Amino acid sequence: MTTRPPDPEDLAERLLRARLTRRQLLAGALGVAGAAAAGRFALGQSPPPVDTTKVPGFPATEVGARTPFEQPFRIQVGQHSWFAPIDRTYGIITPSDLHYVVSHAGTADVAPSAYKLLIHGMVGNSKAFTLADLRRFPSVSLTYSIECSGNSANAWFPPVPTDTAQNVHGLTSTSEWTGVPLSLLLREAGADRNAEWLLAESQDAAVFAKSIPAYKAWDDVLVAYGQNGEALRPEQGYPARLIVPGWEGSVNIKWLRRLEVTDRPFMGREESASYTDVLPNGTSLQFTFEMGAKSVITWPSGGYRVPAAGFWELTGLAWSGRGRVARVEVTTDGGSTWADARLQAPVLPKAHTRFRYPWTWDGKPAVLMSRVTDDSGAVQPIIDDLVKERGLHSIYHNNAVQAWSVEADGSVLSTHDPFRTALAAPGGDREALVRGFPGCLA
Amino acid sequence: MTTRPPDPEDLAERLLRARLTRRQLLAGALGVAGAAAAGRFALGQSPPPVDTTKVPGFPATEVGARTPFEQPFRIQVGQHSWFAPIDRTYGIITPSDLHYVVSHAGTADVAPSAYKLLIHGMVGNSKAFTLADLRRFPSVSLTYSIECSGNSANAWFPPVPTDTAQNVHGLTSTSEWTGVPLSLLLREAGADRNAEWLLAESQDAAVFAKSIPAYKAWDDVLVAYGQNGEALRPEQGYPARLIVPGWEGSVNIKWLRRLEVTDRPFMGREESASYTDVLPNGTSLQFTFEMGAKSVITWPSGGYRVPAAGFWELTGLAWSGRGRVARVEVTTDGGSTWADARLQAPVLPKAHTRFRYPWTWDGKPAVLMSRVTDDSGAVQPIIDDLVKERGLHSIYHNNAVQAWSVEADGSVLSTHDPFRTALAAPGGDREALVRGFPGCLA
Repeated sequence: MTTRPPDPEDLAERLLRARLTRRQLLAGALGVAGAAAAGRFALGQSPPPVDTTKVPGFPATEVGARTPFEQPFRIQVGQHSWFAPIDRTYGIITPSDLHYVVSHAGTADVAPSAYKLLIHGMVGNSKAFTLADLRRFPSVSLTYSIECSGNSANAWFPPVPTDTAQNVHGLTSTSEWTGVPLSLLLREAGADRNAEWLLAESQDAAVFAKSIPAYKAWDDVLVAYGQNGEALRPEQGYPARLIVPGWEGSVNIKWLRRLEVTDRPFMGREESASYTDVLPNGTSLQFTFEMGAKSVITWPSGGYRVPAAGFWELTGLAWSGRGRVARVEVTTDGGSTWADARLQAPVLPKAHTRFRYPWTWDGKPAVLMSRVTDDSGAVQPIIDDLVKERGLHSIYHNNAVQAWSVEADGSVLSTHDPFRTALAAPGGDREALVRGFPGCLA
Repeated sequence: MTTRPPDPEDLAERLLRARLTRRQLLAGALGVAGAAAAGRFALGQSPPPVDTTKVPGFPATEVGARTPFEQPFRIQVGQHSWFAPIDRTYGIITPSDLHYVVSHAGTADVAPSAYKLLIHGMVGNSKAFTLADLRRFPSVSLTYSIECSGNSANAWFPPVPTDTAQNVHGLTSTSEWTGVPLSLLLREAGADRNAEWLLAESQDAAVFAKSIPAYKAWDDVLVAYGQNGEALRPEQGYPARLIVPGWEGSVNIKWLRRLEVTDRPFMGREESASYTDVLPNGTSLQFTFEMGAKSVITWPSGGYRVPAAGFWELTGLAWSGRGRVARVEVTTDGGSTWADARLQAPVLPKAHTRFRYPWTWDGKPAVLMSRVTDDSGAVQPIIDDLVKERGLHSIYHNNAVQAWSVEADGSVLSTHDPFRTALAAPGGDREALVRGFPGCLA
C-alpha cells in the first residue's frame, strides 16, 4: 500500500514488534545495515535522531539487506499456506522472498545437477531435458500473477472483523517469470496434436499432479526457471515450474519433473477429492481452472487505522484470469454510489493491476468496496451471486466483492458486503469449516 | 543471462566457490533450505542425488531465501562502487538486494521517523514533507533503469582480456520505482515557474548535491520511496530518493533531504571538479546529464565459456536515456555482418530492454558485438567516434560498442572492437588512470 502513513496502531508495526527477535537475528546476519538498526530495535525504542551528515555511512555488501524499519513478512495460515503481505507491497511486483506459498509436502530441495524434465506419452520421441537444456531454448520474460483457488476462502463465510487483507486474500502474488514456452518443448518431443490432455507432475514428496487441457499447454504456458531477475526461489519450484497464466495456482506445478501427453485426464486425488466445486445437487464441478475477475482494497484494509479525517488515496489490486482489467469501481458509502478508480499502467493481462482512488473521509463510519470489470466483460460478483450459482459449499474461486468498514475512530474492520443475505450468520469456527474441504488451503 | 548452462569453467560458480564461507553463513541464517544446501557446499562437492519424492520438503518461512545453488552477488570495484551481476540476471528487473551501488560516503542510516524533505528557495511557501506526507500523495509506479556515468569507464581504456560484463558494465540496474511525481510537490510548495534550476541534496555524510534543470524536474522526475514492490533499500536511498529518468545516476539523489528552487546552478564540487567531461582543448563539458544509447551482450560474456559448437541464444541488455530501444543489431564475425536481434517485450522508455539472438557457433574463434539504435535515431557509437568527439580524457558516458572474443576452446575474453585505433595500446594501470579522474567510480 503506497499511501499508508506510519501509525502507532498500524498492523504491520504491531506484527513487527511481536517478531523483533527473529528480525534481529535476520538483520544481524544480513550485514552492517541490519545489525546497526537491529541494535536499535533491541532497545525496544526508536533511536535518538542522528544527523546522518555528521557520521560516516555503513559500507555496502555483496548482497543488500532491508532496513529493519521495513520488514514485511508472510503469515502462515494452516499447515502449508503462507500468505503474502499484499497490504504492504508497492506497485505490482511481489518481492520474490515474500511470494505466497502453498505446498502439499513442504519445499522440495532439488539439486539442479540432478534435475530432469521428462516429456513422454503420446509423443514421437520422449525427451528428458536437463536444466542446462531448458536454459538453451529461446526464452521469454512475462509478468503474470498467480492465485490459489483457495484464496479468500475464509471470506466465503461470514467475515470476522479482525480479518486482514493479508490473512484472507494473500494467496496471490505477481512476478516477472522467465522461461521457455511449453509449446516449444512439446514440438521438440513431437507431441501428438490429437492428444487432448497433459499430466503435469511435481517431484515434491506429495508427487503433486494435475491434468491440464492440451489447448492451454500449446497456448501460453511457460516452463519457468527465472523469477524477478533471478533464479526461481525454492518455494516457487526451483529449478523449474509451470506458469499457466490466469489459471488456479495448483496447476502451476512446481519442481516440475514430468509431463505426460495423454488422451484423457488423470483423475488424480487433486482433481477429484480436492480442487472441485461442490454444487447444491451434491455433484461437483471439476477442472474449473480459470480464476475470476477480482479486486481487493489493500489500503485502508483490515487492521489499519485511518489516522484522521481528510484526503486519503485508497489503493488496491485488481486482476482477472481471463485477461486485462478494463475498469475498477470504488464505493465509500457501502454501495449507494460507485465511481471509477484510476488504473495504474502497465495494465497487463492475467496480472495484478494497481488501482487508486482519491477519498476525502468525513470522519464518519464508512463502508469501502471495489468492483472490477475485465476486458471480457466479466464483472466481479457479490457473494450472493456466487451462492445462487454454486450453493453454500463451494468455497474455492471466491472472487466476491470484499468490504471494509471504517469506524468513527478510523480503525478498519472486515465486514460482509451490505447486500449479503446468504451465509450472513456469525462467523463460527471457520478453520473447522475450511478443514472440511479437502485440499483447501493445503 | 537466461541461456547460460551449468559449466565447470563458469565464472559465477568459480566466484561462488571462492566465497563459500560467506555463503554458508548467509545460507545458515536464511532457513532450512539454505542450511541444508550449504551443508552440501561445505563438503565442497555436489550431494548424492536424492529422490525428493521420498523425503519431506522443508517448511516455508516468513521471508524466503535463495537456493545456495544460485547466489548472485555484487562485486566491489574501488571504495564505494558495487557492480551488479548484469550477466547473471533474467528478464529486466534487478533484484533489489543486487542493485548496483555507488555512494560517496557509505550508506546513510536514516530513521524514517526523523525524515524530512525540505522544498525551499524560489517558492511561495517552503514545505517540509515527512515520509507520511509523501506517502499520502497520489503515487505512480514506473520501471526505469539507472546508470552511473562512470559505468564502463574501464572499457574506455584498452580492455584487459579478463574483464567481465559485471565488473566493467555492472553500474546499471532496473527497478519498478513507486513514488510521487516531483511536479506535484513543486506545485504544493508554489515553486516559481521562472526558476531555471533545482539543487537536490542528500543527507549522507558527503552531503552529496547536484544541480538539476527545472524543466526536467517539472517533467518526469519522481520522489521515490518504493522499489520492486517494497520500500527502498538503504543503499538505494531509504526512505526517499530522486528518480531522474534517463539521466546519469549521480543526479538521482539518494537519502534526499533538500530541494532548493533557484535561478542558477549550484556549481558544487560534484559538477565542477567531478562529473565533467574534459575536452581536447582543456575545457570541460558540464551538466551532460543524459545517458546515451548503449547495449552489452551479457551471455556469452567475459569469464564464461561456450561449452560446445552448435546452437546458442545470445542475450544482452540495451537501453537509452533518450527514450525507447528501437533496434539492436548483433554481429558474430567482428563486424563484417550485422543482423537484427529480437527485442523482448515490454520495451519501456529509459529502461533496460532484453535482446536475444540465435547463434550457431562453428567452433572457430569469433568476435561478438551488439549495437543499439534508440527511437530518437541515436546509434551506439564505437570508441573512435567518442574519441573524435571528446578526445582521450573523457571517460564518463562511455556508451561505445563492446566486443567479446570467443576463443577456439569456447572461453570468452574482453577485447576492443576491431575498428578501434584510438587508445589501442596495451591496458596498463587502468585503476591509476581511473583514479586520475576525480569522482569517477566514486
